[in-house]
Amino acid sequence: MTDTLTPLEAPTLPRPAYRRQFIKQDGRELFLYGYTPHKGTPLPQEGGEVAKGGELRWHPLRQEWNVYAPHRQNRTFKPASADNPLAPSQPGGAPTEIPFQDFELAVFENKFTSLHTEAPAPIEIQGLRSARARGRCEVVVYTPEAQGNLHTIGQDQRRLLLAAWNDRYQALFEAGCEFVLPFENRGDEVGVTLPHPHGQIYGFPFIPSVQQNAALAFAEGYDLSADLTRHVPEYSVSSAGGIEAFCPPYARFPFEVWLAPQRRVAGPWDFSPEEADGFAHLLGDITRRYDAYFERETAYMLSLHAAPRETEDSFHFTAQFYPLLRAPGRVKYLASVEQSTGAFTVDVMPERAAQTLRAL
Amino acid sequence: MTDTLTPLEAPTLPRPAYRRQFIKQDGRELFLYGYTPHKGTPLPQEGGEVAKGGELRWHPLRQEWNVYAPHRQNRTFKPASADNPLAPSQPGGAPTEIPFQDFELAVFENKFTSLHTEAPAPIEIQGLRSARARGRCEVVVYTPEAQGNLHTIGQDQRRLLLAAWNDRYQALFEAGCEFVLPFENRGDEVGVTLPHPHGQIYGFPFIPSVQQNAALAFAEGYDLSADLTRHVPEYSVSSAGGIEAFCPPYARFPFEVWLAPQRRVAGPWDFSPEEADGFAHLLGDITRRYDAYFERETAYMLSLHAAPRETEDSFHFTAQFYPLLRAPGRVKYLASVEQSTGAFTVDVMPERAAQTLRAL
Repeated sequence: MTDTLTPLEAPTLPRPAYRRQFIKQDGRELFLYGYTPHKGTPLPQEGGEVAKGGELRWHPLRQEWNVYAPHRQNRTFKPASADNPLAPSQPGGAPTEIPFQDFELAVFENKFTSLHTEAPAPIEIQGLRSARARGRCEVVVYTPEAQGNLHTIGQDQRRLLLAAWNDRYQALFEAGCEFVLPFENRGDEVGVTLPHPHGQIYGFPFIPSVQQNAALAFAEGYDLSADLTRHVPEYSVSSAGGIEAFCPPYARFPFEVWLAPQRRVAGPWDFSPEEADGFAHLLGDITRRYDAYFERETAYMLSLHAAPRETEDSFHFTAQFYPLLRAPGRVKYLASVEQSTGAFTVDVMPERAAQTLRAL
Repeated sequence: MTDTLTPLEAPTLPRPAYRRQFIKQDGRELFLYGYTPHKGTPLPQEGGEVAKGGELRWHPLRQEWNVYAPHRQNRTFKPASADNPLAPSQPGGAPTEIPFQDFELAVFENKFTSLHTEAPAPIEIQGLRSARARGRCEVVVYTPEAQGNLHTIGQDQRRLLLAAWNDRYQALFEAGCEFVLPFENRGDEVGVTLPHPHGQIYGFPFIPSVQQNAALAFAEGYDLSADLTRHVPEYSVSSAGGIEAFCPPYARFPFEVWLAPQRRVAGPWDFSPEEADGFAHLLGDITRRYDAYFERETAYMLSLHAAPRETEDSFHFTAQFYPLLRAPGRVKYLASVEQSTGAFTVDVMPERAAQTLRAL
């Protein structure tokens, strides 16, 4: 079946939604999520070969896996055939990644993927632990509009995005992933050249070291709900529907903000309708505050930290914003100390950052 | 005693050298290292208050310490009183950080320090583990010349730099530091605006997580010497005096190069004269190769990974270069995946990088 339309199981959405699953000509999956059943006719697509991921190698001193994907080095910087590969295609126009004239929200397999379900066997190197880079790299297109951000797309669209994330969480765990990371890189300083609002999802075949540490801390009793009670209101930026937006006292990036439900849930798939609404609201609210404070489109990294496989019983979900600016016009550089030791030198006290962002 | 001149204990140096220890007017220590005893008369200096470091906070989910230094946020970007604060001072000119008309190599306490021997008590936050940010941040000025790099300063100067590092290692361990990190940030993309060739040294009051993992791996039997034997020549870039320069098969940065002695030594303080000479040579050689390949002053991070306190029996010293370019004209960005999971996505295979750099 290369084209199916099904109601989306998303009980927290304000109204029914649908998922269209479509296999593109080059074999990659495309999902169209929307409040309206998507029935458009596919337009012409690019064919061609798609690289199937790389390999994992174990770093014996850092004790962690890294992903090697040499074919990515040759990825084109100028979009192959259209000015904006994330826009809807137009009849008679150059093909884009989404071969339909319209859509609400789209997810598709990344063409230049480092993780792939059919990743090849790694080359053998004596003394080196390696493995297939099985997994998935997906692109999430937030809106058909070429401009905008998590604030401007609006609450209904953010709710739909959350439902799409949850749908992909379920599918990628079912496909065998050990950890699933929805994320967004935004802005020049993070290396993003395409302004079309979008994020990505990586499905990992291993639990990365950061998540292993977090899972261990939660399993050993770290109580984020208790910390929220203690640290709000001083560290609070905003809150809605049982979700707190706050600068953790142990933030590493200047103006780092986390979103966390007050009650412990393993992932956004366990949100109540109120929490889903609050979380979606705060995604936009924090983006708005950043752009107001830094007086520009703020370069940030946003990632969703849900429970890795088999840690659902104690893991407490957070979403974490890491801005790459430390003041209007001033970039926060991560240099030797951070990259060589893991220890961050933080110039902006989190309590001050919270106060600043709260006031906006 | 605010001004002492002593012979430098550096048996691996090609000829005798000296250390002048001087206390600046604002209380900060300055060390002048040279092959010639330094006897210059101090010139006028800036006085004023120097901030005494910040505090440590424990990240409960990443399980690591970070350093909070809010006063650094206010550090000036335009040098306060001279165009180049790392140049020798001139009679009648504005004071620089080194109040002498000439020097060979200088080390001084950073004015905007995040770690300080007299760091204040941290503010108390309920539920948060915190500590004084005791330690040291030092600046290492490689040469009195305002232009140059680890290649152009020449072998005698690199040998002197190595002797100065070793002298500071000893002093900082004696002062109670748990881990000492000599490092260099170089180039625009790493956030360095001052072209005067220089590096830094951080003396930490804790063993950072990266070094804890490495110490554990070595204690559990990871044998870097055996790996070198297995992986050289395919991964080799260059070698000299028993030191290998190579791209580790598990490199995280494109064109990442490590220098490691073939025999296990805990730190450069244990080098033989041949190893010291080879290591100094390779510091320059790798810098030269980078600049030749990237056709510009390559932005990189360089750090020395010597044994933290009480791990000397199994730790194998390496120096690690992390370039921030992945091809001529193309920056390697560290974004959400790297910052949120620790897992790096590597576009350039280390075996290819080694081949490329070896040929230059």
